[in-house]
Amino acid sequence: MSLTVVGSVAFDAIETPFGKTDKIIGGAATYISLASSYFTKDVNLVAVVGGDFPKSDIQLLQDHSVNTEGLQIKEDEKSFFWSGKYHYDLNSRDTLVTELNVLEHFDPIIPDSYQGCEFLMLGNLSPQVQKLTIERLKERPKLIVMDTMNFWMDIALEPLKETIAMVDVLCINDEEARQLSGEHSLAKAAKVISAMGPKYVIIKKGEHGALLVSGNELFYAPALPLEDVYDPTGAGDTFAGGFIGYLAQTKDISFDNMKRALIYGSAMASFCVQKFGTEQLVGLEHSEIQERAQKFIDLVQVEIELVS
Amino acid sequence: MSLTVVGSVAFDAIETPFGKTDKIIGGAATYISLASSYFTKDVNLVAVVGGDFPKSDIQLLQDHSVNTEGLQIKEDEKSFFWSGKYHYDLNSRDTLVTELNVLEHFDPIIPDSYQGCEFLMLGNLSPQVQKLTIERLKERPKLIVMDTMNFWMDIALEPLKETIAMVDVLCINDEEARQLSGEHSLAKAAKVISAMGPKYVIIKKGEHGALLVSGNELFYAPALPLEDVYDPTGAGDTFAGGFIGYLAQTKDISFDNMKRALIYGSAMASFCVQKFGTEQLVGLEHSEIQERAQKFIDLVQVEIELVS
Repeated sequence: MSLTVVGSVAFDAIETPFGKTDKIIGGAATYISLASSYFTKDVNLVAVVGGDFPKSDIQLLQDHSVNTEGLQIKEDEKSFFWSGKYHYDLNSRDTLVTELNVLEHFDPIIPDSYQGCEFLMLGNLSPQVQKLTIERLKERPKLIVMDTMNFWMDIALEPLKETIAMVDVLCINDEEARQLSGEHSLAKAAKVISAMGPKYVIIKKGEHGALLVSGNELFYAPALPLEDVYDPTGAGDTFAGGFIGYLAQTKDISFDNMKRALIYGSAMASFCVQKFGTEQLVGLEHSEIQERAQKFIDLVQVEIELVS
Repeated sequence: MSLTVVGSVAFDAIETPFGKTDKIIGGAATYISLASSYFTKDVNLVAVVGGDFPKSDIQLLQDHSVNTEGLQIKEDEKSFFWSGKYHYDLNSRDTLVTELNVLEHFDPIIPDSYQGCEFLMLGNLSPQVQKLTIERLKERPKLIVMDTMNFWMDIALEPLKETIAMVDVLCINDEEARQLSGEHSLAKAAKVISAMGPKYVIIKKGEHGALLVSGNELFYAPALPLEDVYDPTGAGDTFAGGFIGYLAQTKDISFDNMKRALIYGSAMASFCVQKFGTEQLVGLEHSEIQERAQKFIDLVQVEIELVS
């Protein structure tokens, strides 16, 4: 079932306590597309890059069956570039450089062949561009999942709320959920956010897992305690890609199936952080993904009987 | 099966964003004893208080079937007193006052009737006193669980390591696990700590749940997302009390049963934080505990099938 992904395709330069990279392929839509490609072969990308973006990186996406018809190439401009340095604990980072470049005037053009897609993933972008993407789809997708970040809460709260009101699932991290809702308790925050529109709220807690809330239903996907984490860049996008990819594959958007999707999203994110950038998301075997998902299941497995 | 608990019985004065208390009953052994009393009626307390400690608070423990024969009362001295103020997010706090008083020269005298106990819970205390307690038991208990804190790592690391080498289960929080092991990854930290002696390591992650590690076996008990948390004081001790209380009740120290014990410990801790001090740990119904434990199970419940 076809999935349209809109978001950034970009260059990242990353420094962590374990090493640093030159400009490598990054961007929300890159991670989302790669992760979802392990679940569905019908991933349609909407994004923009500059003439400086290597053909080999576009090829990499195509090799993962990502349809790049909607990837605009602005030959005379430069690709979006982000550079950041993570602190020792990998939980916080300093942004060193943000060059919007082609992203500044990004007009999300939807190729005709993408029309009729049943799943839409709005990667982190300005809420105005996210909204425009929804409006340009002639038929409303069966499920719209949206990611965002605190930056848009700071500078574009009203447009952000307008877009949030149009989606089914909002996927944000714990601090952002607190900022957006004004509630410290994540259980309360999810309720406040859900009242803004989305029937489902996913709160990503990084190394502490992720929470799915819908009405009074709650599900918690743990994070796997990993011995080695090298680079958290893209983990949230990879999570979202695995989540929506699994839903697109299984064509089932019930709460129960979203629980499974959360586990697969978590499994994909756990691969992502084990190497730099997208390195670990390239050439994964399905059996590895299954094995990893099973570890998430086993981690919380317990049989309990009533005691008195 | 009898459980001996050693630790502080004390006065606390607590301030959180939601209110403040005068001097109320507190101390690690108080929370541990109360929590474990819901699982076993054979809880034997070893502690010391001053003449200022209200008889009604001792009565409270006795009402929960806690044997206070080993509770020394130093009539001419004052009880241990701690006062702290929590920050907005409840994850950090400032200690305002610490008066050791009777705890400064605490000699853990074990009544004869406690000899032969099969479970020993060493609540947070100086590692020298914890060690002395073990040495004074003529027969080694079937299971020794130890709690500690960063304070002892800072001022008494060598005695701490000696005591750790003598126990079966070490129960510490995530930051303490990192400090003790020198490893940021909790998976690695648990391995390093296990090599110091304890076959089982429990890493408490506060609002993010708890991890049980033994060799290559891992289990993760989530924390329940609560709408209202008033006071985290004693949550870790309550967790430990529920954990060892359940083990003492079921007389089974297998890894599988420890998983269940972790769920019950988590359930008890989730009650503890919902009111100030020990208020919520008094007069709980067994059915409430079962219902709460079930919520922890349901929170992570997912059925998954292999996909290709």
